[in-house]
Amino acid sequence: MPIKALLFDVFGTVVDWRTSIAREGEEFGRANDITGIDWMAFADAWRALYQPALEQVRSGKSPWMALDDLHRASLDKLLAERGISGISEPALDHFNRAWHRLDPWPDSVVGLTRLKRKYIIATCSNGNVALMVNLAKYAGLPWDAILGAEPAQQYKPTRVVYEKSVALLRLEPAECVMVAAHNYDLEAAAKCGLQCAFVPRPKEFGPPGRAELTPTGNWQVVAKDLNDLAEQLGRRPDF
Amino acid sequence: MPIKALLFDVFGTVVDWRTSIAREGEEFGRANDITGIDWMAFADAWRALYQPALEQVRSGKSPWMALDDLHRASLDKLLAERGISGISEPALDHFNRAWHRLDPWPDSVVGLTRLKRKYIIATCSNGNVALMVNLAKYAGLPWDAILGAEPAQQYKPTRVVYEKSVALLRLEPAECVMVAAHNYDLEAAAKCGLQCAFVPRPKEFGPPGRAELTPTGNWQVVAKDLNDLAEQLGRRPDF
Repeated sequence: MPIKALLFDVFGTVVDWRTSIAREGEEFGRANDITGIDWMAFADAWRALYQPALEQVRSGKSPWMALDDLHRASLDKLLAERGISGISEPALDHFNRAWHRLDPWPDSVVGLTRLKRKYIIATCSNGNVALMVNLAKYAGLPWDAILGAEPAQQYKPTRVVYEKSVALLRLEPAECVMVAAHNYDLEAAAKCGLQCAFVPRPKEFGPPGRAELTPTGNWQVVAKDLNDLAEQLGRRPDF
Repeated sequence: MPIKALLFDVFGTVVDWRTSIAREGEEFGRANDITGIDWMAFADAWRALYQPALEQVRSGKSPWMALDDLHRASLDKLLAERGISGISEPALDHFNRAWHRLDPWPDSVVGLTRLKRKYIIATCSNGNVALMVNLAKYAGLPWDAILGAEPAQQYKPTRVVYEKSVALLRLEPAECVMVAAHNYDLEAAAKCGLQCAFVPRPKEFGPPGRAELTPTGNWQVVAKDLNDLAEQLGRRPDF
């Protein structure tokens, strides 16, 4: 069955959240006279609250909440823990929207642009629609559609997120390739019948050794970046 | 309040469904040895079943059905009425997807590309996501997001379609402009607090006199095409 669409994980796979959030943290600190914070560590701490926050929704303990709101709750917690208070609401909101201003990896825009010529390229991210749209405009990501968590009202790796994304395109799962730097995401997509492409991002978490470098499943494609993905798909007659 | 997003009606406003469907009808007729059909009249008849089909869903008589499925039910009815039978399922499906292969008006791609530099541009159409994505790829429409009926599980001009589109962008209604060639669409959007731009499309229904040429409300903008819309918005400091 020929491939019609590529569904992308975004945070880590397409954009470099860690150095971008750290840069935005530096700006937030300067603008609000906050000193003594290691903003790279702050970025890691913010991201460390990501899976626990999603789990509140996945487990049913919390009703659906968009990632922007989960990010904000985590931000408020982290600032309180560090004794930072009295920041204006617009400044907090602007910093929370740092997740809308993440830099793409150097190959992302060119690679996506190449892939878009042949395939539907869509997000299948846990980021909500507004976040994904604003991020695409900031980073120049040429998505054909914003799919993923919010249309499904649930978070990956829950099946319904992949299933709803495929259903909205009115395709068969096997006509879609999930593209991600994280094996757990591909494992879940594969269980729903999607094909899988692993694109490791060695620098996602900073120091060497923290990111996943090796596929843990028999993924249909392993590519070193999105240009390599375009080249490999271009060479395969079955794709 | 500055404008952040433009929401577009698509059929008639951005693409010329009538001559495109007629052209696809000619091809369908040739490929399936169907003679004696006026395909321009067939296009008009297919579109004439559009509002009654939507009304089944709007009224609650039918559960949510995507426009692709409503189009197919109408197509089957029209072919049966004309005594056309024995067509293969792939050929019927291909013709039904003629709505995914509609030509843009000459100004649409350039106008949208200009508007996209400054604003989020999204569909707020009754077309389902797959239809809108495939149409965008066929016609080169550079949408930032596909919104409208399917995410709301309801059809325009029901309020929830406009409200859901605005909510998914996490904007205020007054930060959004509904762009349409049809006054009823703008009237409904205005009731939800959106600003409105009327872009008449005199040739939408063919012969002169059939399309709406005049605004029936105090719309914030009346533009002669999407390039004119880009120029007018560029000149207005309040936008």
